[in-house]
Amino acid sequence: MSSYSPSIDELRSAVDARLHTFLDDRRAALTEAAPLIDELERLIDAGGKRLRPVFCYWGYRAAGGSHRDEIVHAAMSLELLHSFAVVHDDIMDAADERRGEPTVHAKNGVNFALLAGDLALVLADAAFVGSGFDPTLITAAFEAYSRMRQEVIAGQYLDLERSREPAISEADARRIAVLKSGRYSIEEPLLIGASLARAEPEMIEALSRFGAPLGEAFQLRDDLLGTFGERADTGKPVDSDIREGKRNVLYAKTVALLDGDERQFFTASWGSGRRLSHDEVERLRALVESCGARAATERLLEELVEQARNALTALHADDQSSDALAALIELSIHRRS
Amino acid sequence: MSSYSPSIDELRSAVDARLHTFLDDRRAALTEAAPLIDELERLIDAGGKRLRPVFCYWGYRAAGGSHRDEIVHAAMSLELLHSFAVVHDDIMDAADERRGEPTVHAKNGVNFALLAGDLALVLADAAFVGSGFDPTLITAAFEAYSRMRQEVIAGQYLDLERSREPAISEADARRIAVLKSGRYSIEEPLLIGASLARAEPEMIEALSRFGAPLGEAFQLRDDLLGTFGERADTGKPVDSDIREGKRNVLYAKTVALLDGDERQFFTASWGSGRRLSHDEVERLRALVESCGARAATERLLEELVEQARNALTALHADDQSSDALAALIELSIHRRS
Repeated sequence: MSSYSPSIDELRSAVDARLHTFLDDRRAALTEAAPLIDELERLIDAGGKRLRPVFCYWGYRAAGGSHRDEIVHAAMSLELLHSFAVVHDDIMDAADERRGEPTVHAKNGVNFALLAGDLALVLADAAFVGSGFDPTLITAAFEAYSRMRQEVIAGQYLDLERSREPAISEADARRIAVLKSGRYSIEEPLLIGASLARAEPEMIEALSRFGAPLGEAFQLRDDLLGTFGERADTGKPVDSDIREGKRNVLYAKTVALLDGDERQFFTASWGSGRRLSHDEVERLRALVESCGARAATERLLEELVEQARNALTALHADDQSSDALAALIELSIHRRS
Repeated sequence: MSSYSPSIDELRSAVDARLHTFLDDRRAALTEAAPLIDELERLIDAGGKRLRPVFCYWGYRAAGGSHRDEIVHAAMSLELLHSFAVVHDDIMDAADERRGEPTVHAKNGVNFALLAGDLALVLADAAFVGSGFDPTLITAAFEAYSRMRQEVIAGQYLDLERSREPAISEADARRIAVLKSGRYSIEEPLLIGASLARAEPEMIEALSRFGAPLGEAFQLRDDLLGTFGERADTGKPVDSDIREGKRNVLYAKTVALLDGDERQFFTASWGSGRRLSHDEVERLRALVESCGARAATERLLEELVEQARNALTALHADDQSSDALAALIELSIHRRS
């Protein structure tokens, strides 16, 4: 097969080059909004794994697509969409740092960040619709694209609502993870790519069976990093998930396993809104560990990865796509940021 | 011609019926986000003129389109897009009331409103792309649709930036009005409708010559209402534009015409952030009036309307479209809210 089969790093570079060309073009057309675009570029240049574009590319290839320029352009739009999600998410979480730099609202104010996020969203659509694919493919793939965006917002909302309540069921915590991150980060990008390659329904279903568990595993890794990661790796304060009171699976499991004074201390401190002392953060981490929630979450993560591995075997994609998707499993879960 | 030629009220009813059907469908699919959709419906039901859908419909008809169901659906998407703009705009302005009711953020908090606005934006796209038109028409019309959204955000940003400076040139104030409202409210909806009817470039240009001045006139009427309107008519506090410190044409002209203590009082009070007393608001209004800025703005408005009337004559549309567009001139500028 003569298709372009880039390494993950090569693909990231191709996506980034396309992103900068696109944003330069928009900056020239929208002179008034240039400072918003500058900030989106600062966010993009500060880091990020370009996971969504990479999954979109390999979903396309696995389904037999071979238009290199068009798919890199469409995949690039998912990174712009992610910039929207990041900027608005950081406003909602009142987060000060992202990728080791001040968040857009911390640097420029909330109104600026609100507009920068809005602009990223509409530019993402412009890039997606303008990717060069046939209009029938664009409108067909727009279904998955649109569903993904609606779900990520629904997931954010559920997260916002649940963060007001001390207890959360593990089922609810997993639903939030699926909606706001799992499908959005992995499954839907794969399906968007596959749709752009005119995939048959069987291929769409097979990619879902691979992407859905991997997406959830990805979010569990994110939750584990948000509690046990190191600042130098994650680019965020070590206690950010704890201070923001994320109602994630780790939290749900811990609350279910603790009782008495420990449970009382845990629910009162996790998400209290105040800056926790180093000792308090360490005590919270120790409780997540000692009650068995960390190990149970790691086990769940491994089960999900095993499901994804089996689904990949059943996918019967070409060798290049199979190898790339196998490498992406490792990238999604064996990471430090 | 046998095409559906609804009155403005009939068209609004058709658009509203379609809006509710669409939102009901989305509420069933996105159960987690139901409270966000409820709030979008509350905002829509509280009022609004459905100006953008109506202009979109008549741009389509003027360009010879005849698919009733599809154009009502596409036009409806512009009202959802407007809901996005309204909800985020109210957050940025810290506005308490809209259409005589509490704003979405005043009732539910900023994070809720941020997500409700984001959802309105992505639902608008889903409605637009899913309107039933041929994919080639959708992707062609998406150019105007996308440009409109980028411009309205650029205009909001320019407005935000300029609101920090005491003086603003009339040229800048007019540019903000064009970007954030004029094109978005009238010209672009007309062009989106025309694109969906496969309009020739000559028709697109002729509609622009009609819509551009009318859009600016519409914004000037809005500015005049924001300073001289009555609360019972506008559904907002009478001093909202004054308290928010809108850098509009009325403000630019007043600052240019005043001097000495009057100018000092005017720039210090307009947009001071504090709740102004009844007497202060009256004094500010009196200054806009006595310096001649109100009359000059009214004159500019009339000149723009005259340009729009001449462009309508030159448009050579069918009688039904010409009559409807003539009625829309009156609706856009002879209004109290």
